[in-house]
Amino acid sequence: MFSPQAIGYARSPYKKTEEVPKGLGAQHEAEGTLEIEPQFEAGLRDIEGFSHLFVLWVFDRSEGFELVSKPPSDDQPHGVFATRSPKRPNPIGLTVVELLRREGRILRVRGLDMLDATPILDVKPYLSSIPQEKLRRGWLAEAEARSEKR
Amino acid sequence: MFSPQAIGYARSPYKKTEEVPKGLGAQHEAEGTLEIEPQFEAGLRDIEGFSHLFVLWVFDRSEGFELVSKPPSDDQPHGVFATRSPKRPNPIGLTVVELLRREGRILRVRGLDMLDATPILDVKPYLSSIPQEKLRRGWLAEAEARSEKR
Repeated sequence: MFSPQAIGYARSPYKKTEEVPKGLGAQHEAEGTLEIEPQFEAGLRDIEGFSHLFVLWVFDRSEGFELVSKPPSDDQPHGVFATRSPKRPNPIGLTVVELLRREGRILRVRGLDMLDATPILDVKPYLSSIPQEKLRRGWLAEAEARSEKR
Repeated sequence: MFSPQAIGYARSPYKKTEEVPKGLGAQHEAEGTLEIEPQFEAGLRDIEGFSHLFVLWVFDRSEGFELVSKPPSDDQPHGVFATRSPKRPNPIGLTVVELLRREGRILRVRGLDMLDATPILDVKPYLSSIPQEKLRRGWLAEAEARSEKR
């Protein structure tokens, strides 16, 4: 196995976990930056041509993991691999952000949902999308339907 | 930082890197399984409700990284964070697969592009998609356009 290293850090408006929008209908419109470390800047070449990026990052303020738990979006328990819970066997977060612009080694992005100073592991171009009509959203769709009825 | 651990292993038809479809128009329709380790099976609860999953995995047969290189889909060099190159500072791969069915701790999936016996770090539900009309695909769209002209 490899030893994870930060390629940079997120600058986000969220200082505490409680400030990150969670649960059904949570909108992630927060703007901020991904500050890539100087020694990795060359790896950003041509990234400005992509509208959206995958960001892999570390839940660095989460400890341990829970295989089954209740997410904020439902009152039913679900397996960790069927949720976005931070308490994962490998505490890696995944976020799709919109790339607004690049300023040298700083990527200005929209759609952050991680805390300020979160270590970033990787950035990848977001290339394809599954058509909406082919997508099933499991317990989340059910929780949304229950929530709408209330 | 955390110490990565395999939550399971991919069983894929690809035994060697050369066998994985690469480059422009590569189709990833390969079927195989994600075999989750028994001690993590409880984390799969309710995963069968999702049609598509993100799989995070380790490029375990890749060594070192290159910040700039030519991908198989272009004759121009690009930064590693603008490509899916395996030679990344953190050698983590990301694949969206279609979940065909769950058999206990075995997930049968379509769309694998990793080698057989690849260690899996995480599985997450695939929840949203960026509408096609909002997506820009950077150098890859340009390389495709050049390729079509030939």
